[in-house]
Amino acid sequence: MNASISFEQQLILLDRRIEKTWADILDNSRLVKAIREGSVSKALYAIYMIETFHYTAHNARNQGLVGVRHADNPVYAKFCFEHAAQEVGHEKMALHDVMSLGLKNQIFDMPPALAETEVLIAYLYWISFTGNPLQRLGYSYWAENAYHFITPLINQLSETLALKPAQLTFFIAHSDIDVEHFNEIKLILQRTCKCQTDWDAIAMVMETSLRLTGNMLEGVYKQYEAWQSGDAPRYEFLHALDNS
Amino acid sequence: MNASISFEQQLILLDRRIEKTWADILDNSRLVKAIREGSVSKALYAIYMIETFHYTAHNARNQGLVGVRHADNPVYAKFCFEHAAQEVGHEKMALHDVMSLGLKNQIFDMPPALAETEVLIAYLYWISFTGNPLQRLGYSYWAENAYHFITPLINQLSETLALKPAQLTFFIAHSDIDVEHFNEIKLILQRTCKCQTDWDAIAMVMETSLRLTGNMLEGVYKQYEAWQSGDAPRYEFLHALDNS
Amino acid sequence: MNASISFEQQLILLDRRIEKTWADILDNSRLVKAIREGSVSKALYAIYMIETFHYTAHNARNQGLVGVRHADNPVYAKFCFEHAAQEVGHEKMALHDVMSLGLKNQIFDMPPALAETEVLIAYLYWISFTGNPLQRLGYSYWAENAYHFITPLINQLSETLALKPAQLTFFIAHSDIDVEHFNEIKLILQRTCKCQTDWDAIAMVMETSLRLTGNMLEGVYKQYEAWQSGDAPRYEFLHALDNS
Amino acid sequence: MNASISFEQQLILLDRRIEKTWADILDNSRLVKAIREGSVSKALYAIYMIETFHYTAHNARNQGLVGVRHADNPVYAKFCFEHAAQEVGHEKMALHDVMSLGLKNQIFDMPPALAETEVLIAYLYWISFTGNPLQRLGYSYWAENAYHFITPLINQLSETLALKPAQLTFFIAHSDIDVEHFNEIKLILQRTCKCQTDWDAIAMVMETSLRLTGNMLEGVYKQYEAWQSGDAPRYEFLHALDNS
Repeated sequence: MNASISFEQQLILLDRRIEKTWADILDNSRLVKAIREGSVSKALYAIYMIETFHYTAHNARNQGLVGVRHADNPVYAKFCFEHAAQEVGHEKMALHDVMSLGLKNQIFDMPPALAETEVLIAYLYWISFTGNPLQRLGYSYWAENAYHFITPLINQLSETLALKPAQLTFFIAHSDIDVEHFNEIKLILQRTCKCQTDWDAIAMVMETSLRLTGNMLEGVYKQYEAWQSGDAPRYEFLHALDNS
Repeated sequence: MNASISFEQQLILLDRRIEKTWADILDNSRLVKAIREGSVSKALYAIYMIETFHYTAHNARNQGLVGVRHADNPVYAKFCFEHAAQEVGHEKMALHDVMSLGLKNQIFDMPPALAETEVLIAYLYWISFTGNPLQRLGYSYWAENAYHFITPLINQLSETLALKPAQLTFFIAHSDIDVEHFNEIKLILQRTCKCQTDWDAIAMVMETSLRLTGNMLEGVYKQYEAWQSGDAPRYEFLHALDNS
Repeated sequence: MNASISFEQQLILLDRRIEKTWADILDNSRLVKAIREGSVSKALYAIYMIETFHYTAHNARNQGLVGVRHADNPVYAKFCFEHAAQEVGHEKMALHDVMSLGLKNQIFDMPPALAETEVLIAYLYWISFTGNPLQRLGYSYWAENAYHFITPLINQLSETLALKPAQLTFFIAHSDIDVEHFNEIKLILQRTCKCQTDWDAIAMVMETSLRLTGNMLEGVYKQYEAWQSGDAPRYEFLHALDNS
Repeated sequence: MNASISFEQQLILLDRRIEKTWADILDNSRLVKAIREGSVSKALYAIYMIETFHYTAHNARNQGLVGVRHADNPVYAKFCFEHAAQEVGHEKMALHDVMSLGLKNQIFDMPPALAETEVLIAYLYWISFTGNPLQRLGYSYWAENAYHFITPLINQLSETLALKPAQLTFFIAHSDIDVEHFNEIKLILQRTCKCQTDWDAIAMVMETSLRLTGNMLEGVYKQYEAWQSGDAPRYEFLHALDNS
């Protein structure tokens, strides 16, 4: 019976699952709540962008790894390497945006990734190295289409923090790039997915990587609370942003 | 004193080392001798192209691996992934050219790579996975500029075997592509090589991978001899080419 | 000031963190609640043991990987390989115990690991492949000493389900083995941990891997609920245990 | 017909192939000739032992890698990890023996591995990471039984250079260990090899790794010649051994 599910229907099933998962995250995330209520601070945003820096630094690498592992299908391997090439260095934008908040002259060690971020990174390498060759497309499918969910939040945040476009290079660049990327991802799904097993693996990675991203958001907020209580020495340098 | 070696001089040193190594190979290779003397047969050429198929199938993968491992330098990582994307699927051309010799209707198992080819493949993964991040450029440096040495041989071979351009897709495509690639490689060397250690690692990988390729050529000829003596059951199917 | 923390004090700090994390898990886990209340069923226990089978099958492998990656310190590398050798095949015990519940004559496909279990497995490979060489000891430190927390639960469970010792090979074997293993782990910590950075990495991996295990327990319970509602076709075969 | 080849006959076939390959190496190696003629010098022996140090440092690691990759067969995985544990740190003996020649008070950088040694190391990782899971046993099969061929040479060498047993720890330890290891290897071959494909893969790796070792010996001699001509600055420190 599954054989009768059309490509368009498969995408609709993925979209529904994304919407449900995003709804869970957006409804429960204290970071999202702070943004929506206008109570987000530069420090909270900085903690979030530091984690964005960390996982983004691995995206080109785990995307490239899929090509290294699964070269049997030239169409797909070419996609993986081209996509990896496009993702290279995007973490620099996240870093630039953090610094632009008012840290340019601060001297500090970049705090290492939080446990929740490490788990996300670990998972993305794992599903790139093993299992169904196509499954990492599940991550791309939601991540390249996330701006639908994220843009309203970024708009609110930039208003609250009075950020200029030059301070939002990561999100602005991705909104632009990702429309095109998302079309490429739908195209490669259409060209490569041959059976329900592929779609199941993609859906599993899609939901799991999105939930792990949600966990990362919550991890960010916990660190923010710790920082407010003076219990997060790793973020001491963020007090430079207090009155900026 | 090394600090005073200019980029152009470094390339000249690499070129000299390539010329010397190629001279060793060309002077000693019985496959090359057979081509030059016009005694090359379709079976000998086929055995060579089967090995070409095998190592070429790994080139995109080990090139991509360099990007996965060494993402610190975005310029270089981007080069690695883009170059990998361009190399994807080139083994299909080698396979096409073998089949075009007259095997299209034969049913046979593709013989696995020879020991010498496995060693070359193993080495290329090893130097991509470990050691100096730039060192695989040493392989690209000779391989993307090999057509200078190889084109005369291919011309002789295609005359001897009366091959049409449509049967030489691998070499024709690479002659075209590689001029551009070679310029890209010189450019990336210029942008990334910072110290003599880099140049030394590149030169080492360059010479070693070229010598291993020479060993592969000799391995091909040994198999051809074995086939002629009836001692190479793996190539039994090549007798279909005897009178073609 | 950290320099003054003795080895014994470091262990006490680890122990406190384990106790706090275990308390969180035990207080919130619905699986644990079901065991304590005597409402656990064979199907629920089977779902748990299937996940135990899955992650256990990777323990020797990721332990061995640490030795492959970090051979500089012979004492530690030897420990890693010896410990890996001892962990080989333990998943067979978990499988045996599942089958002994009454599935011996059932024909079914082993359900793949749950998302939560995949995440745990992914994380254990990641921290074995990268980062501080000693950090996987954080996983061993809690896992080889978990029977303190788990034995009371297993006792209750075996009473509720009327399990014989021959049906509890996984837990009985591990209780026995792990006392000795735990002493070995304390010894290797003493011989290898040289600085606070090591202890921090170990503590981070310890807490994170324990929390991911807690997530796995919750994932098990969610599947059990789905199975009860008829929404988990992957566990259909467990109805064979309904009246056993 | 292959099915009728008994285990004992398979070993005889391997042994013949080893003998033939060793004969090629021993007949052509200039290092071997120098030892047999009593013209070997401390510097030549030191260059050889430095390469021994390099490849030995990877043996436990690539042996362990086989266990990491191929955990399906618990008997074999356990063997791999136990064997890896036993190989850990053996390079220290090679290093000790080099130093004992008279370098103890010299300050020098350990020269990196020669190209030929890198190729051997690369190949051993490659065949451990990919291909037939059992194939690395082909390397163990000749290496753990090499002392039959090597002991006479070591005896001659130690006489020529007047070395004491305490200066030959690497070879003495291995002669002792390897008798037992070799029996273990025959046992594991008997327990794991199920088909001719396994034996073919083992034989291929056996011969190839032995030939690459032969190439390494020749590489050592070339470096010695270069050193004698003053063309090997990497070995400058070996002149400390000239009159010792």
